[in-house]
Amino acid sequence: MKSVLLTGFQPFGGETVNPSLEAVKRLQGAAVEGARLEALEMPTVFGKCLNVLEKAIDALQPDIVIAVGQAGGRSGITVERIAINIDDAPIPDNEGNRPIDTPIIAGGPAAYWSTLPVKTIVSRLRQAGIPASVSQTAGTFVCNHLFYGLSHLLATRYPGTRGGFIHIPYLPKQAAAFPDRPSMSLEVIVRALEIAVQTSIACGQEVIPVEGGQLH
Amino acid sequence: MKSVLLTGFQPFGGETVNPSLEAVKRLQGAAVEGARLEALEMPTVFGKCLNVLEKAIDALQPDIVIAVGQAGGRSGITVERIAINIDDAPIPDNEGNRPIDTPIIAGGPAAYWSTLPVKTIVSRLRQAGIPASVSQTAGTFVCNHLFYGLSHLLATRYPGTRGGFIHIPYLPKQAAAFPDRPSMSLEVIVRALEIAVQTSIACGQEVIPVEGGQLH
Amino acid sequence: MKSVLLTGFQPFGGETVNPSLEAVKRLQGAAVEGARLEALEMPTVFGKCLNVLEKAIDALQPDIVIAVGQAGGRSGITVERIAINIDDAPIPDNEGNRPIDTPIIAGGPAAYWSTLPVKTIVSRLRQAGIPASVSQTAGTFVCNHLFYGLSHLLATRYPGTRGGFIHIPYLPKQAAAFPDRPSMSLEVIVRALEIAVQTSIACGQEVIPVEGGQLH
Amino acid sequence: MKSVLLTGFQPFGGETVNPSLEAVKRLQGAAVEGARLEALEMPTVFGKCLNVLEKAIDALQPDIVIAVGQAGGRSGITVERIAINIDDAPIPDNEGNRPIDTPIIAGGPAAYWSTLPVKTIVSRLRQAGIPASVSQTAGTFVCNHLFYGLSHLLATRYPGTRGGFIHIPYLPKQAAAFPDRPSMSLEVIVRALEIAVQTSIACGQEVIPVEGGQLH
Repeated sequence: MKSVLLTGFQPFGGETVNPSLEAVKRLQGAAVEGARLEALEMPTVFGKCLNVLEKAIDALQPDIVIAVGQAGGRSGITVERIAINIDDAPIPDNEGNRPIDTPIIAGGPAAYWSTLPVKTIVSRLRQAGIPASVSQTAGTFVCNHLFYGLSHLLATRYPGTRGGFIHIPYLPKQAAAFPDRPSMSLEVIVRALEIAVQTSIACGQEVIPVEGGQLH
Repeated sequence: MKSVLLTGFQPFGGETVNPSLEAVKRLQGAAVEGARLEALEMPTVFGKCLNVLEKAIDALQPDIVIAVGQAGGRSGITVERIAINIDDAPIPDNEGNRPIDTPIIAGGPAAYWSTLPVKTIVSRLRQAGIPASVSQTAGTFVCNHLFYGLSHLLATRYPGTRGGFIHIPYLPKQAAAFPDRPSMSLEVIVRALEIAVQTSIACGQEVIPVEGGQLH
Repeated sequence: MKSVLLTGFQPFGGETVNPSLEAVKRLQGAAVEGARLEALEMPTVFGKCLNVLEKAIDALQPDIVIAVGQAGGRSGITVERIAINIDDAPIPDNEGNRPIDTPIIAGGPAAYWSTLPVKTIVSRLRQAGIPASVSQTAGTFVCNHLFYGLSHLLATRYPGTRGGFIHIPYLPKQAAAFPDRPSMSLEVIVRALEIAVQTSIACGQEVIPVEGGQLH
Repeated sequence: MKSVLLTGFQPFGGETVNPSLEAVKRLQGAAVEGARLEALEMPTVFGKCLNVLEKAIDALQPDIVIAVGQAGGRSGITVERIAINIDDAPIPDNEGNRPIDTPIIAGGPAAYWSTLPVKTIVSRLRQAGIPASVSQTAGTFVCNHLFYGLSHLLATRYPGTRGGFIHIPYLPKQAAAFPDRPSMSLEVIVRALEIAVQTSIACGQEVIPVEGGQLH
């Protein structure tokens, strides 16, 4: 039986909830396309999150890994295209670390591409009526750190496993008192992740003519 | 038994759905705080919408009227504070009318305040985890036209009836292919309107210290 | 000789500069279309600013009054269409006052229209290559307070004097460290105010088909 | 004598002007920090722009190359951190090409870092009162194409030459009729490029604690 590892982060930046953790917990043990989903809670801490990830992958030997994170301020699901080899933290992480312009993996390549079918996921989410787009940057905080570390681990030790990163918006309750904070209901987020898993199991990375580029 | 009239607009501006119409339809016939809700479909047409509204109010003699409209681009529920006596259409309405700088009611006052408990509604929505804020402008298109026409009708013919306007975001499916379009699930919108109705029945317009003002 | 009174506010909200004050100072004593410009510094304080304004108008007996204020976050010049009779301060003013939902003039009308040629100003600014649009709300802080107070004074005591309010963006130096703060150079702002004065002297309030309305 | 090559693009996307071309033309022949600036006009065309660039670099043998492009919608100067090996055009280029998910250099690395002192440039721009920040993505259109192609050329053929990409906002006249389009005066943009050149000549890539990272 195939297995899919989904990771969600602990709350950070003053929030008391992280939609990524809420969403992956809902999918713990679920069966999608004949695969079993395992949810993993991630510390929002540079370095430590990669240790937790590596142990889980070694134990589970998953076929697919999808890391999920909160992108406060974005309106829709954003499937990340590329991870870059730099930590540059605009705020401290949950243990007070704030690296500035340091490589995640010394000597590693500048960037790794997601090995998920990024555009097909976006296309299927849109068909399901869920706001979605391709993102060209996962930032330089713990989300990108985990995405790059995951990509490096898969490239160097698990070349048969595919992996990538999906950013999700705030929950409505996180946006309640902010006039300009877009949000998305947990039910929609959970459904989006199911579709992302289904698509990742069923589809390769064929180029499809979905709009996904950006002028800048 | 009290009655509450809820109005929702027909789709406009190239959309095939209008969340305000979808939401009020869901509440047709519902009972809230001992009042019966009546949903009314509004043509997105200057002038005509006011005729439809006046007939419905004459027939129903409601205690409260809440007009609802789509505010594409806004992230949360926005409870409108004031209606202004001008039509200035940035796009044609559904019958091709595009008035520029014409009064809605010749000789009418420049503006009417909502007679709903605007801030208490916002406060209760936030307590329920729903993004909400006060808006200082309902624009100058058919939404403001209906809001002003309703306010004038109530002020001149139904002084005992309270009324106002609530703007709601796009539905997720309207935002699916747009990276920067915030949206809100229909379930959340319907719940928000229920809370707005409850609050309008139960509360007067006492000043409460909810943040609702804007610097500009 | 005609005279035009231009007012600019003292810095507020943690800023050390206010572009409205910088801009009107540059125009002190200038001659535009045969009129002399007088610049007046305004305290960013509820109530007090109206006292300062009334004394200046009584002394100067200007033909036109244009109040100018900073609208941090807006990208272009926004010519305000309407002032509303409410103070609802999202932050304290420069003397710590923070009125919530109180009328500016007890018993005054809900709103006053600008008596400047709003759309003609916007049209001429655009022709000059300066970003400009009509705004339907001046907020509920000191800017709207001054705008409403000015309008009430002119309507009740100086019916032959025209007046209104223009919001301007941050200066570049106020936006230097903020990735998403739009700004405008002082030279462009000053030129915009000159055009606004010229247009206000030369033009009446004829309806012109410039786009200026908003959907919401 | 040192030489610095500055490139600016031809107008695209329906615009009749491109601020990057206007700005670099103003600097043609200027002397900055003892170096001579050469301005080069770039076709906004995939592939062709790289041919033009390579010929110019072969002829000029510059010490530093700064490619400049229009980032419509951004509020400040954005110094790009990284170029990625993909073309994914959301609109056609000026010759109708619209590549989807194709590598710029087959077999090239996923990404190249800018070899300009990115954060020091941002820091000095802010000190000069000019809005500036680090950008983690140059998009996937012709700007990123040129940036990646330049980086690959320098890495493979001119390892002693430093290069990178700077995005600039719309000019005010491009934003005149758009309420939400931020812009920047040409004078400020030109001054920003001078500072970028000065800094690139004088400074290495030492890590400085300027905020430049992003959460996502």
